[in-house]
Amino acid sequence: MSIDYQQLIEENIQKSLSDYQGAIYDPVKYIMSIGGKRIRPGLLLATAKAYGIDENEVMIPAIGVEIFHNFSLVHDDIMDAAALRRSEETVHTKWNINQAILSGDVMFGMAYEHITRVEDRHLRSMINIFNKTTTEVCVGQQLDLDFENLSFVDFDKYIEMIKLKTSVLIGACTYMGAILADAPQGEEKLMYEYGVNMGLAFQIQDDYLDLYGSDIIGKTIGGDIINNKKTILYILAYQKASSETRLVLEGYFSERDTDPKKKIQKVKDIFNKLNINGDMIKLQEKYFDLAVEAIHKTSISISDKEMFIDYAEMQLKREY
Amino acid sequence: MSIDYQQLIEENIQKSLSDYQGAIYDPVKYIMSIGGKRIRPGLLLATAKAYGIDENEVMIPAIGVEIFHNFSLVHDDIMDAAALRRSEETVHTKWNINQAILSGDVMFGMAYEHITRVEDRHLRSMINIFNKTTTEVCVGQQLDLDFENLSFVDFDKYIEMIKLKTSVLIGACTYMGAILADAPQGEEKLMYEYGVNMGLAFQIQDDYLDLYGSDIIGKTIGGDIINNKKTILYILAYQKASSETRLVLEGYFSERDTDPKKKIQKVKDIFNKLNINGDMIKLQEKYFDLAVEAIHKTSISISDKEMFIDYAEMQLKREY
Repeated sequence: MSIDYQQLIEENIQKSLSDYQGAIYDPVKYIMSIGGKRIRPGLLLATAKAYGIDENEVMIPAIGVEIFHNFSLVHDDIMDAAALRRSEETVHTKWNINQAILSGDVMFGMAYEHITRVEDRHLRSMINIFNKTTTEVCVGQQLDLDFENLSFVDFDKYIEMIKLKTSVLIGACTYMGAILADAPQGEEKLMYEYGVNMGLAFQIQDDYLDLYGSDIIGKTIGGDIINNKKTILYILAYQKASSETRLVLEGYFSERDTDPKKKIQKVKDIFNKLNINGDMIKLQEKYFDLAVEAIHKTSISISDKEMFIDYAEMQLKREY
Repeated sequence: MSIDYQQLIEENIQKSLSDYQGAIYDPVKYIMSIGGKRIRPGLLLATAKAYGIDENEVMIPAIGVEIFHNFSLVHDDIMDAAALRRSEETVHTKWNINQAILSGDVMFGMAYEHITRVEDRHLRSMINIFNKTTTEVCVGQQLDLDFENLSFVDFDKYIEMIKLKTSVLIGACTYMGAILADAPQGEEKLMYEYGVNMGLAFQIQDDYLDLYGSDIIGKTIGGDIINNKKTILYILAYQKASSETRLVLEGYFSERDTDPKKKIQKVKDIFNKLNINGDMIKLQEKYFDLAVEAIHKTSISISDKEMFIDYAEMQLKREY
């Protein structure tokens, strides 16, 4: 058994979006069609399934989370002035900023529409977790924007940022799956712990792949360094570096004059010398262990436990 | 008795917003503090009151609607590139576009948080009307953006646009007030009819005041004409005008070279000559009558019926 509902999710996204007609939905259909691993709805379905509920019964709210995730991509891409996403034009590039703001806004409402298409007895729990999560995702994005203007970002603050910006939505998915499947009381919180910690390990891998990954999905390798983005690699390196090396790092991360290739290589050399990879793997392992610990406390079957653990491990070993 | 909860609403907005701390909420507190007539929450409170529920019991969801309304102002002001609102800087002017997008986004979630702080038995109805309304408001804004690129806007399309962009949210308030006060079944729909039709008359008055109103709240008189905005005045005039006058109107509404004062006067002369004011008043009366008709069908007291009718009339007679 594995968490692999991608095809089923794609079909249902298509079906669900075909109900929405009008110019405002064209960018919605576009961003929802240019790929993505569908990790979030997949985890919601898998959690419900592990508690005995057929994936098709929780498909609509699962798609709601994916719509919300894509809403955040559309608006974040404006804020980051990103021209491309997954090798395709971003919404504000293909249309314009106004259209990207507005189509993003309508996606927020669409997400709620989907999330709330559940039985009445689940409605309150679904609303509570989703209200909390949408706010946290915005606050996480705020921290990310704030960090751009700081020369130094504290390690704990950085972890808080990626937790809010990315991990809580993954946690919300496993939480919702448990709620919708009437998991034994309290297990929704364990599944949330799994999701959040898995999400942290996942996001750290994202930072890693920006520099050490392959470029097959059209990402610019080292883009974060070119853009002076202080990712976990930078923060771990800064913590560990001598005061001399810190100055060099600060220098590179506050200018845009150096030839990009040279800059990436120089920074990479520092990271390698400090063995940041090793630290990063230790950090991932910490969150991975917390995720595994939470899973072991649940009452799901041993094979399902293995499935969730394998899935988390797979995310850490992914190359793109 | 009258619908006048402004002071009470202001106090409760302050109280409610003080729970939110962090940089992302500064623009939220700012936009929520620079005034506004609080028509929407006021109508929600008044409706609940007419059905026997104390205004304080429905205050939180009422504030939720006001937060959503202000969210839409923040994002619309970006799209309209508006520098001022109520004589004060708009959020994207005072901060920047990214901050205005993000603080707007968090308001969307805050609105849902407030709207859903109701008893469980009311939750489904509240969610349904709010999901429907948030989507409609976005679609209304889309139509408004689309109209900018059209040389001619159909009368019915224009009414649909202002209905979606403005009136349905007012209707949602009176609907929610009825729901939360457990009004007799079906009366929430009558109150919705009242709100939507009152909102249409209200919005037409807004178009009128842009040209014929006073400038005491810092609005530029004739701003819609300067910006080539096809309001109800233009649409009624275009319908009625000779083909010759139509060309003149089209000319003015497709250029930005004429001296603004002269342009406003020339267009105003055309409107006056065609007696557009008279047509506009007839149109307002149509929606006012529909609002009154709906109120009369409800079971609220005669004095409350009078209150709602007086309130609608007051909106039509307002000078700013």
